[in-house]
Amino acid sequence: MDKGFRLVKKDPSSAARLGKIMTPHGEVLTPAFMPVGTQGAIKALLPEDAKALGAQIILSNTYHLYLRPGHQLIASFGGLHKFMNWPGPILTDSGGFQIYSLGPLMKIKEEGAYFQSHIDGSRHFVSPELAVEIQEALGSDIMMCLDECTPYPATLKEAENSLTLTLKWAQRCKMAKKETDQALFGIIQGGAYHILRKRAAEDMQAIGFDGYALGGLSVGEPKDVMLDIVAGITPLLAEDTPRYLMGVGMPDDIVASVFHGIDLFDCVIPTRCARNGLLFTNQEKIVIKNARYRNDDAPVDETCDCYCCRNYSRAYLRHLFMAREILAMILNTIHNIRYYMRLMENIRWAIQEDRFLDFRNHISNRTQSVTSV
Amino acid sequence: MDKGFRLVKKDPSSAARLGKIMTPHGEVLTPAFMPVGTQGAIKALLPEDAKALGAQIILSNTYHLYLRPGHQLIASFGGLHKFMNWPGPILTDSGGFQIYSLGPLMKIKEEGAYFQSHIDGSRHFVSPELAVEIQEALGSDIMMCLDECTPYPATLKEAENSLTLTLKWAQRCKMAKKETDQALFGIIQGGAYHILRKRAAEDMQAIGFDGYALGGLSVGEPKDVMLDIVAGITPLLAEDTPRYLMGVGMPDDIVASVFHGIDLFDCVIPTRCARNGLLFTNQEKIVIKNARYRNDDAPVDETCDCYCCRNYSRAYLRHLFMAREILAMILNTIHNIRYYMRLMENIRWAIQEDRFLDFRNHISNRTQSVTSV
Repeated sequence: MDKGFRLVKKDPSSAARLGKIMTPHGEVLTPAFMPVGTQGAIKALLPEDAKALGAQIILSNTYHLYLRPGHQLIASFGGLHKFMNWPGPILTDSGGFQIYSLGPLMKIKEEGAYFQSHIDGSRHFVSPELAVEIQEALGSDIMMCLDECTPYPATLKEAENSLTLTLKWAQRCKMAKKETDQALFGIIQGGAYHILRKRAAEDMQAIGFDGYALGGLSVGEPKDVMLDIVAGITPLLAEDTPRYLMGVGMPDDIVASVFHGIDLFDCVIPTRCARNGLLFTNQEKIVIKNARYRNDDAPVDETCDCYCCRNYSRAYLRHLFMAREILAMILNTIHNIRYYMRLMENIRWAIQEDRFLDFRNHISNRTQSVTSV
Repeated sequence: MDKGFRLVKKDPSSAARLGKIMTPHGEVLTPAFMPVGTQGAIKALLPEDAKALGAQIILSNTYHLYLRPGHQLIASFGGLHKFMNWPGPILTDSGGFQIYSLGPLMKIKEEGAYFQSHIDGSRHFVSPELAVEIQEALGSDIMMCLDECTPYPATLKEAENSLTLTLKWAQRCKMAKKETDQALFGIIQGGAYHILRKRAAEDMQAIGFDGYALGGLSVGEPKDVMLDIVAGITPLLAEDTPRYLMGVGMPDDIVASVFHGIDLFDCVIPTRCARNGLLFTNQEKIVIKNARYRNDDAPVDETCDCYCCRNYSRAYLRHLFMAREILAMILNTIHNIRYYMRLMENIRWAIQEDRFLDFRNHISNRTQSVTSV
């Protein structure tokens, strides 16, 4: 089977592009958004439903699965795909971001990351080598190098030290990799400093990976700063490798990042917002608990083709949410995931038809007023 | 369309029988179990999934829907079937049991029940007439008379007073009924006293309803007492009307009650147990969080044809439960509802083939050791 990335088409008016990531578990048309299945399950969604909604690839978390139920256990079940009944491509993040999020419960050293479990406080050590070993045990299609996520703000010196470590770890991850079927992506850090990001892009490509991610963004910096980094770094990355913007994001951020040449996204926003009763539409942001929806017999989005919009009124969804029914989370998740999948389909379609710039401008005008959470 | 009840077959060795309840929204083969959708939704289950699992009819709660979102709102959406996207038959209980469960927040008088909402403490009054009006607004296929649920234990005098009120209310419910498409069932109370239950059965039938329910059971009395009442009263009920044992129950209670001639059941056990990680099988009771399932690659039940058993291991289900994933509740509910639907299918099949007694004895031996919750 073909593996790797194929650049299918470049947009004439921007850095946006159509591509195809080929994995042992199928192809991913890019730009693509990965629904998040942190613990080996997309929250409130059956895997068949995720597939039917248009999900091509999902993300799962090395850190969480390492702690529970354990990567050896998952390996003994034939890997994560079989364990969780998702036959399509899976990307696993390395755990770097989750460990970083532990704050005082973690300590980064040259040899790796020491941390305490958020579940039971037990002590653990993950080296770059172990991060790869865990992901090889999980059998994900795309593995991520262990990185140190640089906080925002950070001084130039702090960001530089952090970057230096991430580069060393990336080298060690590449050395540790044994499985040839699994791709390995490098993560470009460097905080908000172009000079560091540029060095990271060069050095990561000198090591050589199957794809490159921009990490340490969407960690509190202003959106302008994030998009500025994205715009500055993607031109430095080889055209024939996929670019992944980690943890992003809102629909307008995705469109803006595609404009700058990003191919792959993941974020908890659609699923988490669904559980909190926030529903995405092209017209307005729907906070389903609002009293204005009490008698509203319209679907969440008249233009949406999802099961939720085809069968249920806003009034019913509001009732479910107010009554704290689990079905509220299920139906809301179905809608929001479908919204994101349609967004990506429309992005790909626009690039295909050489009208991405119009599409971007349209979304940009529309979303300035309505889609900030 | 035909409405009412048709007795299809009588078991030669017991009071068990096959029947068919005909409603404006379809037929129900009996004996049947109704999954509970208290607030207009079966917890953690899409209506299409409930149908696919074998559910023929579901139960919803007048009390809950009256308080939230309100029966007029549901009526303005064309009734409960459309509002909740369940096109099949629906039975609504009257709210008598829920009001009874409020304890100090309620006061029963001759004219009706005064109570405070469990949601916001607001004060309400439901008369027998209003209970029918609400259920007519909901548009359920089978309505229940408002009753006073007699607690256990109760003195003969208390049970008699309660029964007298329930009989008066039943008369008023029948008088209040306007819709001819909707069936109305009477509820037989009388506590643990045969003499009262017998009078209730006679008086209820003298008023004349489309079906008769045994209420005020499964409220704390020993199982022997419950089955003794069931065994004593069903022979007094006309053969050509359906008999409904409210709020029951465990698989062995259902089988034992079918033996005595019960046609219809409802209970929160399969759905509630699912959410608490208790899974029904013919072999053993599975408490999915137990460490023994950590590496168990078997499905919950090798003999089960449900989506959960065909696609997931006990180890994965345990992982989901330990990780508090919503998917755990979804998959567990799918399995338990399918278990109950298969139980009812097997009961009907056994009656059809004149081997219900064998079936009952087999279940009875098996479940003495394993199915108490």
